[in-house]
Amino acid sequence: MSKGVTSQSKDYAKWYTDVVQKAELADYAPVKGCMIIRPYGYALWENIKSNLDKMFKDTGHVNAYFPLLIPEEFIKREAEHVEGFAPEVAVVTHAGGKKLEKPYVLRPTSETIIWSAYKKWINSYRDLPLLINQWANVIRWEMRTRLFLRTTEFLWQEGHTAHETAEEAKAEAIKMINVYKKLAEEYLAMPVYVGTKTENEKFPGAVETYSIEALVGDKKALQSGTSHYLGQNFAKAFDVKFQNKSNEQEYVYASSWGVSTRLVGGIIMTHGDDKGLILPPKIAPHQIVIIPIYRDDSDKNKVMNLWKKIETTLKEKNIRFKFDNREELTPGFKFNEWEMKGVPVRVEIGPRDADRNGVVTVRRDNREKKFPSLEEFLENITNLLDTIQKDMFSKQLKFREENTFDITNYDELKEVVEKGGYARTFWAGDSELEDKIKDETKATIRCELFEKTKESGKCFYTGKDSEVQVIISKAY
Amino acid sequence: MSKGVTSQSKDYAKWYTDVVQKAELADYAPVKGCMIIRPYGYALWENIKSNLDKMFKDTGHVNAYFPLLIPEEFIKREAEHVEGFAPEVAVVTHAGGKKLEKPYVLRPTSETIIWSAYKKWINSYRDLPLLINQWANVIRWEMRTRLFLRTTEFLWQEGHTAHETAEEAKAEAIKMINVYKKLAEEYLAMPVYVGTKTENEKFPGAVETYSIEALVGDKKALQSGTSHYLGQNFAKAFDVKFQNKSNEQEYVYASSWGVSTRLVGGIIMTHGDDKGLILPPKIAPHQIVIIPIYRDDSDKNKVMNLWKKIETTLKEKNIRFKFDNREELTPGFKFNEWEMKGVPVRVEIGPRDADRNGVVTVRRDNREKKFPSLEEFLENITNLLDTIQKDMFSKQLKFREENTFDITNYDELKEVVEKGGYARTFWAGDSELEDKIKDETKATIRCELFEKTKESGKCFYTGKDSEVQVIISKAY
Repeated sequence: MSKGVTSQSKDYAKWYTDVVQKAELADYAPVKGCMIIRPYGYALWENIKSNLDKMFKDTGHVNAYFPLLIPEEFIKREAEHVEGFAPEVAVVTHAGGKKLEKPYVLRPTSETIIWSAYKKWINSYRDLPLLINQWANVIRWEMRTRLFLRTTEFLWQEGHTAHETAEEAKAEAIKMINVYKKLAEEYLAMPVYVGTKTENEKFPGAVETYSIEALVGDKKALQSGTSHYLGQNFAKAFDVKFQNKSNEQEYVYASSWGVSTRLVGGIIMTHGDDKGLILPPKIAPHQIVIIPIYRDDSDKNKVMNLWKKIETTLKEKNIRFKFDNREELTPGFKFNEWEMKGVPVRVEIGPRDADRNGVVTVRRDNREKKFPSLEEFLENITNLLDTIQKDMFSKQLKFREENTFDITNYDELKEVVEKGGYARTFWAGDSELEDKIKDETKATIRCELFEKTKESGKCFYTGKDSEVQVIISKAY
Repeated sequence: MSKGVTSQSKDYAKWYTDVVQKAELADYAPVKGCMIIRPYGYALWENIKSNLDKMFKDTGHVNAYFPLLIPEEFIKREAEHVEGFAPEVAVVTHAGGKKLEKPYVLRPTSETIIWSAYKKWINSYRDLPLLINQWANVIRWEMRTRLFLRTTEFLWQEGHTAHETAEEAKAEAIKMINVYKKLAEEYLAMPVYVGTKTENEKFPGAVETYSIEALVGDKKALQSGTSHYLGQNFAKAFDVKFQNKSNEQEYVYASSWGVSTRLVGGIIMTHGDDKGLILPPKIAPHQIVIIPIYRDDSDKNKVMNLWKKIETTLKEKNIRFKFDNREELTPGFKFNEWEMKGVPVRVEIGPRDADRNGVVTVRRDNREKKFPSLEEFLENITNLLDTIQKDMFSKQLKFREENTFDITNYDELKEVVEKGGYARTFWAGDSELEDKIKDETKATIRCELFEKTKESGKCFYTGKDSEVQVIISKAY
C-alpha cells in the first residue's frame, strides 16, 4: 500500500494500473477481461450512482429491471445493431444440465429485450412518454481490456425512452447528454466537450449519437457517456406502434443513453498524480481523513478529547469522514495511504494541536497545508470542500483549454496528434476520408461540437466551407 | 388496471399472479422463467434495498462487486456446493464468435469467485474480519418458476465475510439473520420465525444455515432470508489461510447471507387482499396518494388551492406522495387503481373539503375513512403512517399466532398440514425420518427455533426427549 506507483512520465499505462490496484479500487479477476470492484472503488461508484440516479428522478425517470438473458434472435432484428454487437456477445448454450433449444446471449445493451416489452405496454399516445432507466451489468467480449476503462463485464445504467414524436425523442436524447455533462463537470470535476458522433462512430442502430468527451492526463480523449436518438429503428424491429392523437397507428420514437464504471477510470486519469488518486469531494468515499498523532497515553488523551469535539460537528454537517486510529501504523504510513486513495483533505491532530485547540489540514489537490484553530476549521470545512471541488474543475478546464488547438491543415493535425490534446477544426469530409485519417494518424473525430467557437470555417482537409466544427484526438 | 383480480378464496395462486401483473409490479419476460421488474415493483425493491443497505453499513459492512462469470471448475471445488448448484447453472460456452476453451457458469451464488479473491487479500489476522456485501443478479435454472418467488434470474444481496475464529464467524451469521428479522418485521411488517435449518435443508457447503420463515396469506411458510456459518469449507476449497495471533497458519472462517426479490413476493402474499396489494408505509413507493375531485373550473381552483397548502408540508415532512391529477380518469377509477397498488393512505380533496378546509382520508389496510381538518391531517400524517405500519404488523402477528399449533403426534401434524399454518413441536428424528415425513405430508421442518416456547419436550414422532423445538409446514 505505502509503496509508490510508477510515475506518469515514465509509463502512463503502468501508472494507471498501479493506482487502480494500490488505491484498492479494483483487482483482476480469474475471468478473462473481468475485474473485481473492491470496496473503495465500489463506494466511489455508489456515490456517482446516487447523484446520477437523483438527476434521473428529478427529470421524471423511473427505474426498472429487464432480464440479463436475451433470446439470440432478438439481437438480429435490427440490422446495424446485430452487425455492431454480434461479434462481442457471450452465449449461453447449456443450462440446468441440458443443451438449450435456443441459445441466449448475455445483454451487451438492452434495446432489444426492452423494446420487446414496450410492445406489450404501449398502445396509445396516453402510454407515452415512457421514461425508464435500469442499473445493470452488461457483458461485451472485448479483446483488449483495461481495468474500469474497458472490461468484459461492466456496471452501467441504460435509459430507454419511448415518445410520440421524433422531436420529443431527440430532445430527450439531448437532455440526457446534458445531464451527463452536468455529472461530469459538477460532480467529477471533469470538463467535457459535448457533440454529435459521426456516422462512422455512432451507436449501432441509432440515427444520431451524442457523446461527452473528456481529456485525461496523457492528453487522450475519453468518451465518457453517450446518448442516442434511435428514431423508429427499434420500434420497427419489434413492431411497436401506438395510436397517435390523430387516431393513426404510428411507430414509436426512441432514445437510449448510458454511462458506466468507465467513469471511475476517467476520474483516476483526469485528476491523479504520481502520489495516486485525487478525488473530487462530491464523490469521494471519505471527504476528509483524520489522523491522530501521539506517543504516550497522556498525549493520546489530549488528542482524543480534541477528536470528540470534531466528530460531532462533522456528523452534523453530513461530512463523510474517516478517523484512522489504527494503532499499529505510523502517521507517515497513513499519510501515504490516504494520499494514494485521494482523500481530498487530511486532518492531523497531535498533542500540540490539542494544546492550541487547532488542527493541521493538508489539501490533496494542491498540497496546501494550514494550521487553523478548531473553530475556524469546523466553520470552514464545508467551504473548503466546495473550494477544492471548484479548483479541481478549474485546473482541468485550464488543462483542456491549453491542450485544445485550432488547426487548419493536415500537418497541424498530425502535430497535435503527436503531442497530444484535441485538434479543433471544421470538417466537410466523408466516411472514407475519416477512415483514412484514422488509419494514418490513429486519431478519430470525437464529435461534432454542440457549442462551436464560430459559425463556420474551412475544412482542414478538403478546404470546403463547413458549418461542422469537430474535435479530433487519439482516444481510449 | 381497474379490473379486479381473482379472489384469494377462489384461486390463491391466480390471485397472486393477477396482483403482480395488475399492480404493475412485474411482467413475464420472453426468456424462460425470467421476469421484468416494472417501475412500481422496482421502486418497492429500491426501498427495501436502501433500508437494508443502511443496516449493513451500520453493522460495519462495505459493498463490492465480483464477476458474474465463474470458471466452471471453481464450482466443483467444494463437494456439497457442486452437488447443490451444478444442476442449476447456466453455462457460457461461446463468446466473441468463438468456442471458449473453458466454459464459464453464471453465478448461482458467489462463494467460489469471492473466496478465490479472498485468497489474494487475506494474509494475516490483521486483514480480518473482511465484511463484504454485494448487490447483484444471479441465475439459477429453476424448473418451476413464479414471479418474484422463484425466477431463473433474480436480484439479491449476498454478504461474504471472513473471520479469525469459528465463534466470530458464527456470531456474524447469527447477527445477520437477526438483521433480516428486523427488516422483515419492522419494515415489511412481516413476522418471522428464526431458527436453524436441519441438515437436509441447509445450504450446500454450509456447516449451519439459519433462516427467517414467514407465514403468508394461504398459510404456507415462505423462507425469506438465509444466513450461513460456513466454517472453513470454502477457505479449504480455495486454500485461504491466515497467520493467526499465535503466528500459525490457519484456514479462515466464513459466513454468507442473502435476501432477494423474493421478499417482494412475501410482501404481496403477507398483506394483500382481493382488492390487490397492501403496502407497509415504510417501503411503499408512494405512502399517500392525493386525488383531487372537481367538476368545473371554479371547483378546480378551490381544490388546487387546498392542494398547494398540503404539498409544501408533505415535502417538509419527507413523505413520499403521489398527486394523481390525470384529467381523463374518474376518481372511482383512480381509487381502484391505487387500492390495487396498495398505497397506504388515500387522500381525497374535493370542493366541499376545500370549503371546510379539510380532507378525506382512507386507510388501505382497514379501509377506515376519516374527515380531518387540514390542520389535523397535516399534524397527524406521520403518526398515521406509523400507526398503519404497526397495525399491519400486529395483524399479521395475530394471524401467525392463530395459525401456529403445538402438536404432539403425527396425526395432529397431518391435520395442521391439511388446514395450513405452522405445527410447532419437539423433534428427535434423523434425516431419513424427515424425508419420510416430507414425502407423506409435503411439509418440511422449516427450522429449529432460536426462541423456544419451552426448554424441552417429547418428539412428536419418535416420542424421545428433545431440546430441539421445530416448526413444520408446507412451504413455497
